[in-house]
Amino acid sequence: MESVKEKLLNSSSSVDQTLDVLLKLDERPERRIIEAMRYSCLGGGKRIRPFLILESSSLFGVDAQAALRVAAAIEMVHCYSLIHDDLPAMDNDDLRRGKATCHKQFDEATAILAGDALLTKAFEVLSETITDASGEVRSELVLALARAAGHKGMVGGQMIDLLSESQPLELEEISYLQRLKTGALIECAVESGAILGRAPEFEKRKLGAYAFEVGLAFQITDDLLDVEGEEAQVGKKTGKDKDAGKATFVSILGAEKARNQALFHCQKAIEELEVFGDRASILRDLAKFIVTRSS
Amino acid sequence: MESVKEKLLNSSSSVDQTLDVLLKLDERPERRIIEAMRYSCLGGGKRIRPFLILESSSLFGVDAQAALRVAAAIEMVHCYSLIHDDLPAMDNDDLRRGKATCHKQFDEATAILAGDALLTKAFEVLSETITDASGEVRSELVLALARAAGHKGMVGGQMIDLLSESQPLELEEISYLQRLKTGALIECAVESGAILGRAPEFEKRKLGAYAFEVGLAFQITDDLLDVEGEEAQVGKKTGKDKDAGKATFVSILGAEKARNQALFHCQKAIEELEVFGDRASILRDLAKFIVTRSS
Repeated sequence: MESVKEKLLNSSSSVDQTLDVLLKLDERPERRIIEAMRYSCLGGGKRIRPFLILESSSLFGVDAQAALRVAAAIEMVHCYSLIHDDLPAMDNDDLRRGKATCHKQFDEATAILAGDALLTKAFEVLSETITDASGEVRSELVLALARAAGHKGMVGGQMIDLLSESQPLELEEISYLQRLKTGALIECAVESGAILGRAPEFEKRKLGAYAFEVGLAFQITDDLLDVEGEEAQVGKKTGKDKDAGKATFVSILGAEKARNQALFHCQKAIEELEVFGDRASILRDLAKFIVTRSS
Repeated sequence: MESVKEKLLNSSSSVDQTLDVLLKLDERPERRIIEAMRYSCLGGGKRIRPFLILESSSLFGVDAQAALRVAAAIEMVHCYSLIHDDLPAMDNDDLRRGKATCHKQFDEATAILAGDALLTKAFEVLSETITDASGEVRSELVLALARAAGHKGMVGGQMIDLLSESQPLELEEISYLQRLKTGALIECAVESGAILGRAPEFEKRKLGAYAFEVGLAFQITDDLLDVEGEEAQVGKKTGKDKDAGKATFVSILGAEKARNQALFHCQKAIEELEVFGDRASILRDLAKFIVTRSS
């Protein structure tokens, strides 16, 4: 397990380097927006989505530079969603990844624009010819990300999450919400690796099933950390769901059943990888890491 | 000139039909977000950007259905930018296109998410195979839109615009701001028509030059309408620039010089179209319409 942590750290620093190049500071009048984009993107986060792309694409021998660009693009989308979710009109958070949220560090208008710009930049990166020589592949990457991030994916999930504050959800509704809010982008990360790798349909489906299980395991663990984690360790405010009166996997199932559920999804994720044999050992370890992490 | 107005109205209704299909309401739990997207996209606006795509692509005999999809995508990006610009943290506007702004009609959180979702949906529409059979073309459309809408384009322009409230700009800086804030998307609209039409490089450049001039003429006229227009006619709050202490083409040049400048850019735009002969007569008329419109 130690090795996955190390590998995450290593890939995280490669992703940072790629983001640093893609979000280059210059002296234009609009410099402030790049500062805000960099502030929220660089030097923080577990970088689990980028890692999923790097590892799923490496199953098919994809060039690491191309995979890193796609990884950076998906991380931009993840970071944009955090910036907007943290806004006063949404979750109204002051702390993210152990530092001030974007609108606290800059201001609300800049934070809204920085989020918009990161989302847009992600599609720019994917569609540049240097990402992949095939226009079909680039276009497929764009489509997968747009579907995962849009109103039938991540943004739709955030909409339901906001609505759930006035009307607590049932277990099935929470599963649906989480599939959209966090699952879709996690699934997109794994799928993007397979797209870059021109994976056969059968293997794409297996990776998709893995990503689905990992997404659920990830979210249940997040709910557990919100209840049981220390703020300093988790790097963001904890106890938020309870304060907001939101139903979660933990509030409905209780901590013990939720933990078992997370382990169950972790196990199912691992089983989906059988077809890849030893090549997928890091993806297996990652599934285990996701349910045992402390932040 | 009457005929351009009629043509704008006709194409506007085709664009509305396309948007209506692309933003289909359903009974999912996240339904509210689609309602907000539709509220801000359907049934309003001059639809000048979509018209530019339809007309520039028709120079090259592009299928109208494909052009309408691209037109709808760019209109989604325009509408998202209006939703976010109207937010309390930005321009804090209550009125848009003659009705309540999105955050007034729904709420701030929903408006932020509806903007995010429209931006994302635009890239989904462009990258779907039905838009164009060639992955290269779809990818090129995505790249053009992402560059035009991102931090070096529209969003960057909005950033400068916000910063200019504390430090009024010089004429040259205003030109730069407007090129980013409104020019980039107008240029992208014309360019997208050329991309769909596989236009030769020389004709692409001519259309690009036309779009650049039209963008400036459009913005100067907008500034004039902000000073001289009636709120009910213009469909949004007027006198905003002065109230915000912003320098504009009009505040620096005075109304008469600004009007002459708009006519000058209109004339230059028309000259750029010479290579297309009579085929471009509607684009010529559009340039004239843009500087004589009253809303």
